[in-house]
Amino acid sequence: MKEFSIIEKYFTSQSQPRQDVIIGVGDDCAITKVPANQALATTTDTLVSGVHFLPDTAPSDIAHKALAVNLSDLAAVGAVPAWISLAISLERTDEDWLDEFSDTLARLCEYYSINLIGGDTTRGPLSITITAQGFVPPESIATRSGAKPGDLLYVTGTLGDAGAGLDILLGKLDCSTLTTLNSQQQDTIASYLTERHYKPTPRVLAGTALRRMISSCIDLSDGLLGDIQHIMRASKCGAHINVESLPISPALAALVPAEQAFDYALSAGDDYELCFSLPQKNTSELELALNAANVNFTCIGQIVGGNMLILTHNGHPYQPAGHSFEHQFDS
Amino acid sequence: MKEFSIIEKYFTSQSQPRQDVIIGVGDDCAITKVPANQALATTTDTLVSGVHFLPDTAPSDIAHKALAVNLSDLAAVGAVPAWISLAISLERTDEDWLDEFSDTLARLCEYYSINLIGGDTTRGPLSITITAQGFVPPESIATRSGAKPGDLLYVTGTLGDAGAGLDILLGKLDCSTLTTLNSQQQDTIASYLTERHYKPTPRVLAGTALRRMISSCIDLSDGLLGDIQHIMRASKCGAHINVESLPISPALAALVPAEQAFDYALSAGDDYELCFSLPQKNTSELELALNAANVNFTCIGQIVGGNMLILTHNGHPYQPAGHSFEHQFDS
Repeated sequence: MKEFSIIEKYFTSQSQPRQDVIIGVGDDCAITKVPANQALATTTDTLVSGVHFLPDTAPSDIAHKALAVNLSDLAAVGAVPAWISLAISLERTDEDWLDEFSDTLARLCEYYSINLIGGDTTRGPLSITITAQGFVPPESIATRSGAKPGDLLYVTGTLGDAGAGLDILLGKLDCSTLTTLNSQQQDTIASYLTERHYKPTPRVLAGTALRRMISSCIDLSDGLLGDIQHIMRASKCGAHINVESLPISPALAALVPAEQAFDYALSAGDDYELCFSLPQKNTSELELALNAANVNFTCIGQIVGGNMLILTHNGHPYQPAGHSFEHQFDS
Repeated sequence: MKEFSIIEKYFTSQSQPRQDVIIGVGDDCAITKVPANQALATTTDTLVSGVHFLPDTAPSDIAHKALAVNLSDLAAVGAVPAWISLAISLERTDEDWLDEFSDTLARLCEYYSINLIGGDTTRGPLSITITAQGFVPPESIATRSGAKPGDLLYVTGTLGDAGAGLDILLGKLDCSTLTTLNSQQQDTIASYLTERHYKPTPRVLAGTALRRMISSCIDLSDGLLGDIQHIMRASKCGAHINVESLPISPALAALVPAEQAFDYALSAGDDYELCFSLPQKNTSELELALNAANVNFTCIGQIVGGNMLILTHNGHPYQPAGHSFEHQFDS
């Protein structure tokens, strides 16, 4: 099948066209309208087979992740997603693969009320680049650079699940060692953790709920230890993390000893939770906002002066075993 | 070198920051402002090594082409370019390659007064995806769908040069067979044509100059025969091309017989000239506009009723030898 017909066949149908899309897929450019009182947020992320996902990952899961990692970036600045462009490289035209990939992408676009507005299909090693665009009021942008000493440090959800899920897929963790559990319970744990790897949830609602009250924000793609340092560098500050406060899911806690769970939470990537700093005066506002958005959140420490990242466990210095994950399965 | 430091080292310096960029490279998203009276034009194009460019292409030429093909799409809808996002996959960190690629990209961004606002660097087979954004007044968008029977059909510049340049690089054409020319003249021809392959000129000024007066427009990336059919399909019309009118450069005319030159002009891709239809009443306005933009243009035929593409040469039916080029060197 030719390049053009791939785009036309798989990526031009939109069940719910947005009013702000003047021209969508099928012309030289998409033409859209940004509301006058909103700034435009744009982010681009590429997933490469064998680097960002295992080569045997289902097309549906690849579609999910490719979209989620981009929406997660929009969430981190507090933007509401609007449109995506898709550049996809395929070794060969595989209609089953394209059917499943495009169906999932279309379903998720409908869920998030976003439109696919453009695409480029090329022949090459499998990789997916999505550019996502969204809106954020210019006065409420959450950046990496506003953290101040004294601000409290939070994360949404639980950390380390996606990393443990990947290790289950790679055979480095094995739920059948949980001999006190029956096989159905073991499967539930394995499936929860691997789904967290395959299908991260972008914190879109939380991002927009938080943007007015927080001082900085980042999404956790490369692991807390690595990502918090982006906030520290951009905000010219240090941070203190209470390791014992890190939110660990029941599944991860059941599977590995506490120290290993903390290591996943600190160093494994792909959680796509938000990490943000909050002026202390805003703590009640935070509870109201995130409870309304039905998102769990945990205070894991505090922004401090200087430029050091301090880890303690029940008040004692803590040395993590791992290191920030840089999207490579072979390291 | 890690993913983060590649982005920071090579792609964050902007010599001329635009006032409409609130946050550029280095946060989760770029944040920008679109003027209230303008629509946003967005386009995404990927270049894959071995598919869209020869594997030994210089990084500077890859940067040029990756930007040009995207700006050409903006030109086709009449948009003024504003910002680009870059997703680049590299097999390994090659600092010389990155130096040369990023230098050229930065120089071209300055030339076009655009800013690089975001990027993602991943490890993988060499490919470059650029998403370009620009502005166009909503009342002046040039699309593929407005052509009407009777409208005249035009192209900018000359056609077929890039295809012949590629064939010189592949050893399928040889300028040393031009025995009536000395070696310096042969080199001049080879170098003109290969530069047209490596460094297409996006018709940005022409695109904005034309947008008020034309009825449809497309940029010629895949060859005139293929691309004109996009206008025909979108506009529900036919087209008649007078093959003898196709603009052939002196270099191409010197190198190959007329019929072969027409075949390049009709079927080879990568010219990145604009092809547009014009209501006949607007011909004087067209001359004024494109002469002011210093862009050559040629009437090559007419939009007709029906849905057929008719080719004639001096009034006789014409059968081209080639077929539309679909970005594959191996076909």
